[in-house]
Amino acid sequence: MSFSLADHEFMAKAIKLAQRGQFTTSPNPNVGCVIVKNNEIIGEGWHKKAGTGHAEVNALVNLTAEQTTDATAYVTLEPCSHFGRTPPCANQLIDANIKRVVVAMLDPNPLVAGKGILLLMQAGVDVKLGLLELDARALNLGFLSRMETKRPFVSVKMASSLDGKSALGNGQSKWITGAEARADVQTYRAKACAILSTATTVIADNAKLNVRAEQLNFSYPFDDVVKEIRQPIKIILDSRGDLDDKHQSELALFDGKESTVSGTSIIIVRKDSDELPASAHNNVSYIQLPYDESANRFDIGALLDWCGKNEINNLWVEAGAKLAASFVEQSLFDQLIVYIAPKIMGMNAQDVMPVGPFDAMEQTIELQLKTLTLLGQDMRLSYVNKSYVNKVAVKAVDIKESEE
Amino acid sequence: MSFSLADHEFMAKAIKLAQRGQFTTSPNPNVGCVIVKNNEIIGEGWHKKAGTGHAEVNALVNLTAEQTTDATAYVTLEPCSHFGRTPPCANQLIDANIKRVVVAMLDPNPLVAGKGILLLMQAGVDVKLGLLELDARALNLGFLSRMETKRPFVSVKMASSLDGKSALGNGQSKWITGAEARADVQTYRAKACAILSTATTVIADNAKLNVRAEQLNFSYPFDDVVKEIRQPIKIILDSRGDLDDKHQSELALFDGKESTVSGTSIIIVRKDSDELPASAHNNVSYIQLPYDESANRFDIGALLDWCGKNEINNLWVEAGAKLAASFVEQSLFDQLIVYIAPKIMGMNAQDVMPVGPFDAMEQTIELQLKTLTLLGQDMRLSYVNKSYVNKVAVKAVDIKESEE
Repeated sequence: MSFSLADHEFMAKAIKLAQRGQFTTSPNPNVGCVIVKNNEIIGEGWHKKAGTGHAEVNALVNLTAEQTTDATAYVTLEPCSHFGRTPPCANQLIDANIKRVVVAMLDPNPLVAGKGILLLMQAGVDVKLGLLELDARALNLGFLSRMETKRPFVSVKMASSLDGKSALGNGQSKWITGAEARADVQTYRAKACAILSTATTVIADNAKLNVRAEQLNFSYPFDDVVKEIRQPIKIILDSRGDLDDKHQSELALFDGKESTVSGTSIIIVRKDSDELPASAHNNVSYIQLPYDESANRFDIGALLDWCGKNEINNLWVEAGAKLAASFVEQSLFDQLIVYIAPKIMGMNAQDVMPVGPFDAMEQTIELQLKTLTLLGQDMRLSYVNKSYVNKVAVKAVDIKESEE
Repeated sequence: MSFSLADHEFMAKAIKLAQRGQFTTSPNPNVGCVIVKNNEIIGEGWHKKAGTGHAEVNALVNLTAEQTTDATAYVTLEPCSHFGRTPPCANQLIDANIKRVVVAMLDPNPLVAGKGILLLMQAGVDVKLGLLELDARALNLGFLSRMETKRPFVSVKMASSLDGKSALGNGQSKWITGAEARADVQTYRAKACAILSTATTVIADNAKLNVRAEQLNFSYPFDDVVKEIRQPIKIILDSRGDLDDKHQSELALFDGKESTVSGTSIIIVRKDSDELPASAHNNVSYIQLPYDESANRFDIGALLDWCGKNEINNLWVEAGAKLAASFVEQSLFDQLIVYIAPKIMGMNAQDVMPVGPFDAMEQTIELQLKTLTLLGQDMRLSYVNKSYVNKVAVKAVDIKESEE
């Protein structure tokens, strides 16, 4: 199947539109749509927020039946075929007399994949699939991960000196990286559905773990959306029950006097053998997860299962070296985001990644460099796990006529 | 003083010519020269090797007196005024009836700085100084360092995993970085006048420390020069006298059966309290330097003084973490060249930079990021020492008429 240059341009435009939803659509995916007639764009839409119009509907909304008749629609994700929060988009495209629909990728949910396309085909619409599929997948790594693996896309943040240290021997670590790198973290937090940290980190740094919209980095007009940017859920591992009532009233995370995050949800994770306290704050809730006493850590796999069940597409892990190492050692991460500062912290400082020990080079953990970005005097490196390659690979799905 | 756009272009060309000498001119500086008449380049020259023609002479060599009369010469370094290995270039420009000479920078040797320019001015030549001075200085960081500080420009190489480790706990370190990064090292070695390493490294890796011309990275026609690329002197610190006769006949460094470096000089550094053995190889010699028994290391300052006295412009330090840390801890380096591989080597692996320990963030060593280069899956980062800024800063030198 071959696509024209114009097809590529229109789909690229739809992908750009979809990106505008990056801070707001979860748990829904980012989707963009462009309606084209006589080689001109006559309608544009993107999905902004769960419960509001899908991209196709937003692209069609101002168009007359005359305009849409015999037009082409470019959509980054297969139009839906089920009555959910809104009527099925496939039907809306059919009702608008759209002649041709170009789809970047199938719905990742195997139960519905192909159904929207079949609906269109059965109505006589010319459907083409697979244009800029990799780019379309890149829009929704978190959503795809949850659909395909039942677990979120996991990004683990590290901040390191040039010599691989996260703190001095006495625990001092403010500030390893500069202001630009710290602001850069805001964009990752804002894209996340949940931030995972630990009671130790929250108490040591009195961390708010909140999103400051004014520090976000994006390049499109966005004033109306900035207002809607959600604060991610905070999931705090607390194996020792440190986050008691006293701490909850003192810490910025829990709406202390410094906090600007009122109303956001905080999930405190306790051992499944613990007795849970009554919550002192109405935005705090407790969950219990299995704890591995010999390894002295929570069962990360069980945590990721919990996240998947609770519609968390993207998990941003921002804590100390020990938690980061748990994810890396068990290969339960998708990407490492590493900030490296031009500092040497020397002997006895704390290792940024205490995994191992390893006895042979073949045992060491191999990553794959994905991006490299300069932030003032610091660098941001993103590395992907080997398993990531499978997670985001293009999936070929046969489309057959349904046998129902 | 203002220079025209054409002046800038011609000087930039002279600088590009000078760069061709980067692997061959030491202990002399890299110098380029362009002769321009009626806004056209009529002669080009660059210095290739000590004992052969200077840039000005090479630029003039094919030109007639008629051509050079009233021409302008662009030179990256002040023309010499003394009879050395060749006759003074200032006189040759005067003899050629050059009307105007544009000079990027003064001779860095304070004993002769300004003398070439005065000679030209006294002959009625219109001399302009300071065009693209910083670029001209960048050509000759090693030569300038030796002239201005009596010590070489010191580059310390590190190869590290992402988590700041140079070897596993058991010493394994082959290979942390990939083939592209290892080839990249060749270019640094080739630019160096001497490579500094240790007996420990040479024995553990059976390292040749040689330059393989076919792996060098440059972007100009260079076939004739490749043949002339010199093997840097190897300076090997040997505090325990490990490089005895037996090792010398077994190791690749000493023309062992694997070696391709016959004829190059090897300097073995022993403690000044040691009795020196008679050399077993005719390309090996011994020197003695002070040794700090309490810190368990040679006096690096004394080593750098020795290098300066022996016309070593650029010193490339390629050994283990301990030697690199000695340079960094004492701030005796100009740049760190760090290769970072996408690997995690984990706990108990060896720190790449064992300095300190430090008790406060203010004590940690701050570097300045200069360049960032992707090499396959690895990165090369160059960081400069704070003192470097002074070393390469433009030096204002008053030019006065001599009072002799």
